[in-house]
Amino acid sequence: MKERFSKLLLGEDMSGSGKGVCTAVTISNAITNLYATVFGHNLRLEPLMPEKKAMWKREMDCLLSVCDYIVEFIPTIQTLRDGTTVEIMTSRPRSDICINLPALKKLDAMLLEILDSFQDTEFWYAEQGSISSNSNRSGSFRKVVHHKEEKWWLPVPCVPTEGLSESSRKQLQQKRDCANQIHKAAMAINSSVLDEMDIPHSYMASLPKCGRTSVGDSIYRYMSSGDKFSPDNLLGCLNIASEHEALELADHVEASMYTWRRKACLYHSKPSWTSVKEYIMETGRTDKNHTLAERAESLLFCLKQRFPELSQTSLDTCKIQYNRDVGQAILESYSRVLEGLAYNVMAWIEDVLYVDRNTVNLQEE
Amino acid sequence: MKERFSKLLLGEDMSGSGKGVCTAVTISNAITNLYATVFGHNLRLEPLMPEKKAMWKREMDCLLSVCDYIVEFIPTIQTLRDGTTVEIMTSRPRSDICINLPALKKLDAMLLEILDSFQDTEFWYAEQGSISSNSNRSGSFRKVVHHKEEKWWLPVPCVPTEGLSESSRKQLQQKRDCANQIHKAAMAINSSVLDEMDIPHSYMASLPKCGRTSVGDSIYRYMSSGDKFSPDNLLGCLNIASEHEALELADHVEASMYTWRRKACLYHSKPSWTSVKEYIMETGRTDKNHTLAERAESLLFCLKQRFPELSQTSLDTCKIQYNRDVGQAILESYSRVLEGLAYNVMAWIEDVLYVDRNTVNLQEE
Repeated sequence: MKERFSKLLLGEDMSGSGKGVCTAVTISNAITNLYATVFGHNLRLEPLMPEKKAMWKREMDCLLSVCDYIVEFIPTIQTLRDGTTVEIMTSRPRSDICINLPALKKLDAMLLEILDSFQDTEFWYAEQGSISSNSNRSGSFRKVVHHKEEKWWLPVPCVPTEGLSESSRKQLQQKRDCANQIHKAAMAINSSVLDEMDIPHSYMASLPKCGRTSVGDSIYRYMSSGDKFSPDNLLGCLNIASEHEALELADHVEASMYTWRRKACLYHSKPSWTSVKEYIMETGRTDKNHTLAERAESLLFCLKQRFPELSQTSLDTCKIQYNRDVGQAILESYSRVLEGLAYNVMAWIEDVLYVDRNTVNLQEE
Repeated sequence: MKERFSKLLLGEDMSGSGKGVCTAVTISNAITNLYATVFGHNLRLEPLMPEKKAMWKREMDCLLSVCDYIVEFIPTIQTLRDGTTVEIMTSRPRSDICINLPALKKLDAMLLEILDSFQDTEFWYAEQGSISSNSNRSGSFRKVVHHKEEKWWLPVPCVPTEGLSESSRKQLQQKRDCANQIHKAAMAINSSVLDEMDIPHSYMASLPKCGRTSVGDSIYRYMSSGDKFSPDNLLGCLNIASEHEALELADHVEASMYTWRRKACLYHSKPSWTSVKEYIMETGRTDKNHTLAERAESLLFCLKQRFPELSQTSLDTCKIQYNRDVGQAILESYSRVLEGLAYNVMAWIEDVLYVDRNTVNLQEE
């Protein structure tokens, strides 16, 4: 424990010169790396090996313990003996941590429980290719999802020739639904924490002067013409072929959105986007940049709904990199790795059910 | 331990927002505070209470353990099986830590041993005034030394009417000499670590444009006139009445020294003071600022020799505040608190010997 904490204190700069990263980034990276170490080679539905499980619990316990000492001060009314009331400041655990951390711990325990339940199963695995790590990061903090046919490194599930028993199949479906719920919950926490994080200056500085540059001429024309704008129609026209293309589009749309927001703020000489929106609500006066920013926002929202497994955008990655808030760093990284694990469990169960369906169909033919 | 490490990671910012101080300053403050907690109320020659001793060892062990993971990379020649040699980089503990940390641990153990030896002593203490903490910091990181008559808060040592036994007196003298050596060693380490620390930009920015402003007209006239300069004569003329005055003078002389050095660098268009000195060694050409800086340096040196117990100067305090090097922070703060403890032990022994001498003299009269 001393070793882990000491290395965290050095902020990944083992020379001790203090030129490493800040605590928030150090802990975020530590959680990401711990996840890769413990779950990186775990590619099938089976209980986690006891030593890996112990490592995960022990090390996460260390990393999460920092949250126990993060507090916020709130004014509290205290009644004195003579009945007069005074306002004093009292400390309490920070509310975002209070709400999200116990939830994440619960999701973590549920996922390990699901994995533990895969003992003496009716299905088994045949090795297809060599096993490699599934911690494919490619610059994003969330895993890139591969198409089924591309997953050559995954062991292939096998079921008895007559298929799974009815009870076994039902249990699998229940566990898949459970993993799906866990995935949604972890994803919701991750998104909300990322939303709360400050937008780094470097991201704003890297934006092009003109929103049109980011999205490209054809999308810009669609977005800027006409009174009505249907993001769904636009996405339909674009024929997005892969998650990779979707992510690229999301990056561009997000960049344009912030470029237009910035312009709208300058135009209305308002310091923030929220105050621009309030101004427009009050006066009813709007400008082109405001409209474009709103349309970009709805386009991004639709895109994320169509591709729920989308990797984190450049802005998300940038936020994580520049974030200095230790509490947010822990919540973001913990929810991100749990989201990944839940998705994997869900996909592995889906694979077994798929093989089962095929086997049963073959029997019936 | 989790609690201590977590708080260190939060950098004294319990809100978790990462707006606290860097690891170096956090650890430096933690060592300073631990020393005050453990030794702050310890004002007499007696063994440290077991729980305080355990606390000191346990907590220092935690804080110092960070040093175990600080390494430097050095090129090493490796001979391969076929006899060819290749140069590879290997890591080893950082040399300044390797040299100084074991020495400091040894000094620490020796001081505790000296305190432990004061059991069943021939002398005892009478309370004079109320006891207050001796951790008088007044903006400096080293204690301010008070005159004997001002130390009203110290318990007064008492000896038997016939004085101490000869063996007891000899042991006391030996321990005083030992504490004196420890004090010198800790001070030497502290000075060398401080010398190695970078001069903060904020210190350089705060310097007046003109060195004369800092030292004042009369000292400036003395320093700038004549071919020969005797710092001892100057100090003799100044009639420095207290440590406080000496510290003030040291601050001013140090500020002037850096102002003149900066000017000399500009004049010779050399980037650093070392290169200015080399240039002057080579060419023999010198300028007024160089001479003044050299004289200020010798004056500061003499002043520190006359007042070996001088508190840290503004520059030292500023260096500690802006230092980001974790290794230097640990070495500086550890040596500083040991220096303080050694000085106190020395002074307390001196007090007992003083009372003993007075008692024996009274007997003989």
